[in-house]
Amino acid sequence: MRTIRYQCELARRAQQQLLTRSASQKNALLRAMADCLIASAERILSENAMDVEEAMRDGQSVALVDRLTLTPARLEGMAAGLRDIAALTDPVGSIVEGWVQPNGLQIRQVRVPLGVVGIIYEARPNVTTDAIGLCIKTGNSVVLRGSSSTFRSNQAIVNAVLGAFSESTEADCIQLLDDTRRESVVEFVQMKGLVDLVIPRGGAQLIQTVITHATVPSIETGVGNCHIFVDESADLDWATSIILNAKVQRPSVCNSCETILIHEAIADRYLPRIVSELNGRNVEVRGCDRARSVVPTMMIASDSDWDTEYLDLIIAVKIVGSVADAVHHIRQHGTLHSEAIVSNDFENISWFTSQVDAAAVLVNASTRFVDGGEFGFGAEMGISTQKLHARGPMGLKELTTMKYIVVGSGHVR
Amino acid sequence: MRTIRYQCELARRAQQQLLTRSASQKNALLRAMADCLIASAERILSENAMDVEEAMRDGQSVALVDRLTLTPARLEGMAAGLRDIAALTDPVGSIVEGWVQPNGLQIRQVRVPLGVVGIIYEARPNVTTDAIGLCIKTGNSVVLRGSSSTFRSNQAIVNAVLGAFSESTEADCIQLLDDTRRESVVEFVQMKGLVDLVIPRGGAQLIQTVITHATVPSIETGVGNCHIFVDESADLDWATSIILNAKVQRPSVCNSCETILIHEAIADRYLPRIVSELNGRNVEVRGCDRARSVVPTMMIASDSDWDTEYLDLIIAVKIVGSVADAVHHIRQHGTLHSEAIVSNDFENISWFTSQVDAAAVLVNASTRFVDGGEFGFGAEMGISTQKLHARGPMGLKELTTMKYIVVGSGHVR
Repeated sequence: MRTIRYQCELARRAQQQLLTRSASQKNALLRAMADCLIASAERILSENAMDVEEAMRDGQSVALVDRLTLTPARLEGMAAGLRDIAALTDPVGSIVEGWVQPNGLQIRQVRVPLGVVGIIYEARPNVTTDAIGLCIKTGNSVVLRGSSSTFRSNQAIVNAVLGAFSESTEADCIQLLDDTRRESVVEFVQMKGLVDLVIPRGGAQLIQTVITHATVPSIETGVGNCHIFVDESADLDWATSIILNAKVQRPSVCNSCETILIHEAIADRYLPRIVSELNGRNVEVRGCDRARSVVPTMMIASDSDWDTEYLDLIIAVKIVGSVADAVHHIRQHGTLHSEAIVSNDFENISWFTSQVDAAAVLVNASTRFVDGGEFGFGAEMGISTQKLHARGPMGLKELTTMKYIVVGSGHVR
Repeated sequence: MRTIRYQCELARRAQQQLLTRSASQKNALLRAMADCLIASAERILSENAMDVEEAMRDGQSVALVDRLTLTPARLEGMAAGLRDIAALTDPVGSIVEGWVQPNGLQIRQVRVPLGVVGIIYEARPNVTTDAIGLCIKTGNSVVLRGSSSTFRSNQAIVNAVLGAFSESTEADCIQLLDDTRRESVVEFVQMKGLVDLVIPRGGAQLIQTVITHATVPSIETGVGNCHIFVDESADLDWATSIILNAKVQRPSVCNSCETILIHEAIADRYLPRIVSELNGRNVEVRGCDRARSVVPTMMIASDSDWDTEYLDLIIAVKIVGSVADAVHHIRQHGTLHSEAIVSNDFENISWFTSQVDAAAVLVNASTRFVDGGEFGFGAEMGISTQKLHARGPMGLKELTTMKYIVVGSGHVR
């Protein structure tokens, strides 16, 4: 087993070689990777079958086994993902700003790769190719720390795409960590100087481990306790379709809705309707005392419900007195991910959008739209729920940094 | 003594009030602070005199006592700094990008304040007003953790500028930590959820403490082991004036030059000249073996010299075989701050600017230009030497984050 440090050193060295590749060379590499992936389909699927078998033997959840399982169609999707990334515009080299100082000094701020990007993720082999594609496209080496339960699948995928490289020193730009012991996460996030950014893609516990131990800069992703506030003036048909979409379409994802806040002036009129619609779609509704006085059949919401990311067909409902109360509740319980208002009132919409602190604030639209694909980024590396460097869906640009290039002709101060 | 947590909570609450201020209201506040500072000059200077007296009694260095000492002129300068910040354009609210998706969803990426910004700094009372000015301008609360040796001065300054606020709850947006014990730095950088960004402005040891213990995102600033590479094709008059400027004009700052790399083809011709010029300005020159074979009177550079940020009238010299060798040396020893090439060769300049990884790469200009003022930012919060969020001189924009505002009309996926 190679050490984490050794693999990070290989990645760092290889990145210098990647730096000399033009955008079209990198795109050719990505397309070749897609071809290699398809060419190795049989091998990947058989390795994956062993991971799946072991996961079932270990009594893993159906959801985990489903995410882990590869099929020929899913593998085609992964290859298509690499080709899609190849077709995107390369942000590297673009000039973000450029000006000339009064003394004639020319200053340009240019996008450059971050260097070495680390990804820590769980049993999702499709993340392996997504991360490789996005990182190589932006000239970064990538160090993948997948879960031990997906190791065989990940290794087969990485071995396949490495076939696209003609030089083994450059191929070092993709590293799948051999060390998948639980404690290796802590060691990995302390590779300061070798790794420039680490992105944990997983549950709250993984993110907490990274925040506590990381010396490498990290970006938090994915925890979403998202709210929808239905204002007094809301179009109630819009409110209903938005709530149903945000809860039911895909409840297991971070941009699904967990709590609805309903203006007291429409509670009597609207609450029975939305509860019945939700129940009709097998959603369990848990309400505050005031909500339960309107719909007494509702389950009771305990204090902890307001802070729970259910990721399931459960939703909490609270009656609030005003948009200010809704904002106050979101400040107390939100996770800075995506927060929505359904309203037809200009002032209330203005207040909500300016006062709610979140990666995305939505007006009369489902929280499910906060997604790289829906934003038109083509691909995403997760949704950042913190404020530094990247906020919201992370696309290619968020995998770059900037460098100032300052040109003079013998200039001194 | 109030606890750190309590003061951070006050700052967070007050920031919500700051959020409702328009740019012109914030600017009026900054100008009122400048007036308050001048009105309290007598009190500030007398408190400062006590800090200075104690520092001298404690045998602090002349440099520290100089940085600590306030004079009426320096106080005027600090007030002028606040007025200058008031005159800058407010980045808050500016739309960074905005587009409409094919489904009609409107997406805007808007600049918003970070929230609560923490600054950890050493005995420089002028940083107190700079940090306050930049943070309030951008709608952020600021929590100042100055050094204990400057506490009386800082407190007098903060008390003065707080006179500009009419409401005490809003005045809580400026917090000077009561707790200046050494160990309070560690507690402060773990105020995750209350503080959004912490910026250490100080030496390598402070920065290391922050990196090791912080759970709050932080930005490294200020360590600069900067190089100037003199290429074979360099205009040697430019090289000389750039080196002298970068070493001598202000040796104690992070963008001064610490090592010069000289192409072997011009070593015999150029080295005696630059060494004599440097010696003539009291600069001690330490050379590698090859350099000393050309100028034998030179001191010898040990391995540790290549990694030393002298911040003094000392410079190291190394002879290199090519631009690639120079890049290699900088990769080994640079601190990602500012790196310069003096050259007249197109290919070598291209190689150097593309291959050197640093906040700023300079061509035929002194490293001393890497500075917020020289870049035209009006004021700066330090120079970031890391790659996330901000790189290079940090102005107002770097004290903001982004928020997506997504507007639909009942849109669902």
